[in-house]
Amino acid sequence: MELTLLGLGAMGAALARTWLAAGYPLTVWNRTSSRAEPLEAEGATVAATAAEAVAGGRLVVVCLLDDASVGEALADADLTGKDLVNLTTGTPAQARARAAWAQDRGARFLDGGIMAVPPMIGVPESGGYVFYSGSRALFDERHDVLAVPAAARFAGADPGFAALHDVALLSAMTGMFAGISHAFALIRGEDLAPKEFAPLLVDWLTAMAPAAYEIASQLESGDYTEGVGSNLAMMVEGNATLLRTAEEQRVSAELLVPFMDLMARRLADGHGDEGTAGVVELLTR
Amino acid sequence: MELTLLGLGAMGAALARTWLAAGYPLTVWNRTSSRAEPLEAEGATVAATAAEAVAGGRLVVVCLLDDASVGEALADADLTGKDLVNLTTGTPAQARARAAWAQDRGARFLDGGIMAVPPMIGVPESGGYVFYSGSRALFDERHDVLAVPAAARFAGADPGFAALHDVALLSAMTGMFAGISHAFALIRGEDLAPKEFAPLLVDWLTAMAPAAYEIASQLESGDYTEGVGSNLAMMVEGNATLLRTAEEQRVSAELLVPFMDLMARRLADGHGDEGTAGVVELLTR
Repeated sequence: MELTLLGLGAMGAALARTWLAAGYPLTVWNRTSSRAEPLEAEGATVAATAAEAVAGGRLVVVCLLDDASVGEALADADLTGKDLVNLTTGTPAQARARAAWAQDRGARFLDGGIMAVPPMIGVPESGGYVFYSGSRALFDERHDVLAVPAAARFAGADPGFAALHDVALLSAMTGMFAGISHAFALIRGEDLAPKEFAPLLVDWLTAMAPAAYEIASQLESGDYTEGVGSNLAMMVEGNATLLRTAEEQRVSAELLVPFMDLMARRLADGHGDEGTAGVVELLTR
Repeated sequence: MELTLLGLGAMGAALARTWLAAGYPLTVWNRTSSRAEPLEAEGATVAATAAEAVAGGRLVVVCLLDDASVGEALADADLTGKDLVNLTTGTPAQARARAAWAQDRGARFLDGGIMAVPPMIGVPESGGYVFYSGSRALFDERHDVLAVPAAARFAGADPGFAALHDVALLSAMTGMFAGISHAFALIRGEDLAPKEFAPLLVDWLTAMAPAAYEIASQLESGDYTEGVGSNLAMMVEGNATLLRTAEEQRVSAELLVPFMDLMARRLADGHGDEGTAGVVELLTR
């Protein structure tokens, strides 16, 4: 299997090393060519241009800065009969447009969303993985190669779905990290070591994350009161204690207030017996 | 063991039932006396006043609406020689003031923070538990009784620590739920069932929650670059894709923006090689 990789940033270089280590013949290209030198020493063929690199491989993996860089790098490349796998970070709409663009040029296309940071690549036990969406045939035929750097999961035939899954999970994580930051801010200055508090925090978040199953079920049934243990009326009351505590501890509540405001709005709209699923409606324009 | 419980809201009633089921003689009182009737039928002694209820028990558990209700209910009660356990929701400062107040009246004092909703009470496999803080002697001597409704964890001699732990965990959960809401909003209107997406979301949040250990370690060492896999510079770049995707999907980014703004501020302050731990500093006044 002749494999080409465009882009040797931290992620690209990590990907390249796992394929070289697994014995795949690899052609690489990077805009700044000095980044390719160490990989040449490890067995990669370095191409002078992206078009030349593409010509050297049947499976072409792209991991560049952004979608615009992909268009630029591949402008002069002949993609006829190629399998193009785009691991460049982007939005679902960018992935869909890029898929149509690639198909117009005679390539099969997969978009990918990498759920890992570079140190997790080639480390199966890290739990990192990559969402792929687009051509199922490409995914199935190239699965062995694609699964070398990290586990490969097919997210759907819609080429936007890898990015959609990726961004949705990262967005949820952003919220969780905001909550974690607020929690650590609350205990700051107290006689309570962060390392002593962390296991309680991790256990609690792990125990509460499955609430997402309940919310999913409510969103599908449309009945947001289904199986609710703690309802909005109770939660909004509890929020007052959370805010008062933040004030006592001299911690800004800016990370909690937007969600609490939406909960209060749903309550004011007469949904006090529901859980938080209705907030999803308020977020959608 | 003569046990008294003041307050028969949803939580108080759930607590009462577990003690009655475990065979403890229980005296109860509630401001609205009709709430006590079903418990009387189940074997509880109903007191006409809070003071009378307190006189009937050596261990007095209080689970009322708020801290002011505790002061009111116990105004005329003789607390000399009593063990007072306050499970009323409140802030750390309220718990500390209530502890001093109780000690002035000759009682030993524990404050509690219930990490459970009423349906989890008396259901050990639910994972619910109660933080207690204040008198360690009281906690140790009454542990068997206290552990009947839910597992009992001692959070420190500082009577404010049960509430501090409670509020910190609930605050972190609020952030996580905000993130979950945003994620579900992103996939709304797409051909992707919430129930199909939920397991990916739960697995991802569960895999990422242990980042709190790393943040704790960084907060203790003061080196926020320690072991950083994805640094602020990379994350802030990624945030642009998250925001652009929200716009494409017509989802308000109001739940993500405050945390992203703090990340961008730390980056602008020259901390691009750090993780998110520095945000904790920005939250603290």
